[in-house]
Amino acid sequence: MPKTELSHRAQNTPPSPIRKLAPLAIKAKKAGIHVYKLNIGQPDIESPEEYFEGLRLFDEKVIAYEESQGNERLCRAWSKYINRTLRIDTRPEQFIITVGASEALVFTFMTCCDPGDEIIVFDPTYANYLGFAAIAGIDLAPVLCDMEENFSLPERSRIADKITDRTRAILVCSPNNPTGTVCSKEELRLLFDLCEEHNLFLIVDETYREFVYDDFEPFSILNLEPNSERVIVIDSLSKRFSLCGARVGCLISSNEEVLASALKIAQARLAAPTMSQFASAYMLENIKDDFLQGVVNEFRVRRDALYAALKEIPGVIVQKPQGAFYTVVQFPVADADKFAAYMLDKFSYDGKTTFIAPAAGFYMQDSSQGLPQARVAYVLNKNDIEEAIGVLAAGLQSYSGK
Amino acid sequence: MPKTELSHRAQNTPPSPIRKLAPLAIKAKKAGIHVYKLNIGQPDIESPEEYFEGLRLFDEKVIAYEESQGNERLCRAWSKYINRTLRIDTRPEQFIITVGASEALVFTFMTCCDPGDEIIVFDPTYANYLGFAAIAGIDLAPVLCDMEENFSLPERSRIADKITDRTRAILVCSPNNPTGTVCSKEELRLLFDLCEEHNLFLIVDETYREFVYDDFEPFSILNLEPNSERVIVIDSLSKRFSLCGARVGCLISSNEEVLASALKIAQARLAAPTMSQFASAYMLENIKDDFLQGVVNEFRVRRDALYAALKEIPGVIVQKPQGAFYTVVQFPVADADKFAAYMLDKFSYDGKTTFIAPAAGFYMQDSSQGLPQARVAYVLNKNDIEEAIGVLAAGLQSYSGK
Repeated sequence: MPKTELSHRAQNTPPSPIRKLAPLAIKAKKAGIHVYKLNIGQPDIESPEEYFEGLRLFDEKVIAYEESQGNERLCRAWSKYINRTLRIDTRPEQFIITVGASEALVFTFMTCCDPGDEIIVFDPTYANYLGFAAIAGIDLAPVLCDMEENFSLPERSRIADKITDRTRAILVCSPNNPTGTVCSKEELRLLFDLCEEHNLFLIVDETYREFVYDDFEPFSILNLEPNSERVIVIDSLSKRFSLCGARVGCLISSNEEVLASALKIAQARLAAPTMSQFASAYMLENIKDDFLQGVVNEFRVRRDALYAALKEIPGVIVQKPQGAFYTVVQFPVADADKFAAYMLDKFSYDGKTTFIAPAAGFYMQDSSQGLPQARVAYVLNKNDIEEAIGVLAAGLQSYSGK
Repeated sequence: MPKTELSHRAQNTPPSPIRKLAPLAIKAKKAGIHVYKLNIGQPDIESPEEYFEGLRLFDEKVIAYEESQGNERLCRAWSKYINRTLRIDTRPEQFIITVGASEALVFTFMTCCDPGDEIIVFDPTYANYLGFAAIAGIDLAPVLCDMEENFSLPERSRIADKITDRTRAILVCSPNNPTGTVCSKEELRLLFDLCEEHNLFLIVDETYREFVYDDFEPFSILNLEPNSERVIVIDSLSKRFSLCGARVGCLISSNEEVLASALKIAQARLAAPTMSQFASAYMLENIKDDFLQGVVNEFRVRRDALYAALKEIPGVIVQKPQGAFYTVVQFPVADADKFAAYMLDKFSYDGKTTFIAPAAGFYMQDSSQGLPQARVAYVLNKNDIEEAIGVLAAGLQSYSGK
C-alpha cells in the first residue's frame, strides 16, 4: 500500500519558534537542571484571587455549552472594563468571546480574507501570526522594522509599497510582541489613514495594552476610531490578568457584518469554555484597578533589570522596550537557534540554564535578519531575571569559546 | 470611502442549523415561555462530581499555558480509559488534546487536506463538519444514506463512485450525529478497505462511542485497526461525561507524521484550557465505569420514550435510533425550517414550546432531501421528552391547520 500523504500545508506549517525547543527544555528539566523560561510569554504573576473565586461560585450542575458569541455577562463586564480604562463607549454586542486571542485572530483572518489574500504585518512579527495565516490559507506581507530605530514603524511609503490588490488588512500588535515597541497615536493614525485610503481593515492586537512604561499611557485604536467599520481589535485576558491557561480572548468590532461572519465561524466550533468565561466575568466585575497597576509596575522593574543586565554582556545589542514584556536581543553569534539549543542541551551553570526563543522564526520575509537575534520575555521576577541573564552570559562565553 | 468587503468564505459559510434559530428561542424565553431544547446535543445529565473535585484540587497559583499537545496526565488517563473500555493498547503519545472534538476535526482536516481537496461524508452529515470544512477550505463529498434503510451506509460502489483524485479521506461519525445510526464492524471494515484501496485516510468521529443500545456494544475503529497509519480517531469528553462546556476533545493516531503536523497547528493556537484538562485528567483517573453505564441506560429510556411518542403523531416518519442521542424525523410539512421557527415564534402550549433543528442544513448535497425533516436530540429526561413531543404534536396540528 502506498503511504497516505499529508497535506502540503501541514508539511509547510513552520513549527513555533517559541515552542520548538521545548523538548530540549523538558530533557534538561528531567536531568535536574533548573530552566529559566524566558522563551514564552508566560508570566509568573499569580492569577487574581477573583478568578478563582469566580470558579468557586459556579454552581451549575451541568457544564453546558456557552453561547457561541460568548457569555453575555462576560461581554458586558469586558465592555465595561474597556470603557472605564480607556474612557470610551463600547457596547457588549461588539464583543465575540474566543479561545484566547489566537482564535480571535483566526476568526478575523477568515472573515477579512479569502485564501491567497494578504495581510500586511511588521517584521519581526509575532511568530504565531504565521501559524494563523497557514490555518486561514492567507499570506502575510511583512514590512521590515529597523532594530536601530527600536523597531518603530517604518515610514508611510514603505508600508504603502507593500499594498497590492490582494491586500485586505494591516495587522499591528501594540505594545508589540516580540519587540516591546509601542505605537504612538500618530503611528496608529497613519495606519488608519492608509487603510482608509486603500479600503483595508485595520486589525490591532491589543493583548498587552496596559503594559506600557515611562511616558506611555494605555491607548487603543478605539480611542482614535471608536466607530469605524474598518477597525477590529483583538484582546485577551491572558497577559494582563496572568490567565494564559484560561484561554479567554475576544474580538471587538463595530462592523455588524464582521460580527455576523465571525459568529458563523464561531458557531461551527460551538463555544469557548464555559467555566473560564463565568470566572472571567466575575473577575472583571470585581477586580480592583490596582491589581493591574501592581502588575505593570512589577514588569517595569523587570524590564529595567533585564535591560541593565543585557547591556553588560559584551557584543549584545538591545533596545529598551517601551511596553509588553518582550525584547528582541542581538547576540554575538551566527545563529541564535543553535545558541538557544546549546543552552538547553549542552550548558548549565550551577545547575541552571536559560531558555530563549530564537528570533529567525519571527521574521516572515527574510529569516536571516533574525539569525543572531532572540526574543527574551521578562516574565520572571527581578532576581530570577538577573540570575537567568547571568547564566546566559556565561553560556555565551562558553559557546563562543567552543 | 468604499465599504470594506468581507471574504467570500465568510459570506458563504452557512449559519449553524442547530444554532441559527437560537435568537427566536431567546425571544420566547424572554416572553416567559419554557423552551424544550431538543435542537442541540446538550444533555441535562449532571457533570461528574469527579470533574468538579478535580477543579477544586487544582492548586497552582498561576493558570499557565498547558503544553500544546495537551496535559500529559490527561493523555495518560484518556489512553488508559480507552484501553480499559475497548480492550486495546493505545499509548498516551498517540493523543493530542484539543478544544473539543471541533478543534480535533479542524486539525485533522488541515493535516490531511490542502484547500480544494475533498473528504467523503455521509448525508445527512453533522452540520458543523461543513463549518470545519469552510475553515479548512476543503470540500465535503457527501454520499446519501436512505432514511428507509435507517440511514445505514450505502453499498460500496456508491461510496467508491464518489472517490476522485482530490479525495483525501473518508469521514464517518458512529454512533451517528444526526441520525443515531451505528456502523457495524462489517461497515467499518468496508470503509477501511476502501481507504486502503484508494490510499485515503479514515477519520472516525467516536464522540458518542459508548451511546449504543439494544444489541450493540461500544466498538472503535481501533478495535479493528489499532496500528494503521490511515486511521485518525476523533474523541471528546463532552457527551459521555456531560462536559460539553469543558471543551475537551482529542485526536488519536498512530501515524507519527499526522501527529507531528497536527502538533504544529496546535502550537500556533498555543494550548487548550489548563484547568479543564487538569480536572478531566483527575476525573478519568477516578470515575467509576458505572457512571457511564447509568448515563447510557438513561438515554436508552429516553430513546424509547421519544420513539414511542413520535410514532403516535400522524404523518411523522421516524426510525428507531441505535445509538448517540439524536434521530432524524420526517414531519408532514413542506419545510421543517419554517415549522421549527413557527414553534418558537408563534406557538406555545400551556406556556411551553419545543425547539428542534431543521435537517436541511445537515444535507450537504441536496438540502431539499432534508426539507421536511428535523434532527431531534433526546437530551432531556423521559417526562420532559414526553411533554416536549406532546407540545410538538399540538404545534404540528396548529401549523397544519393554518
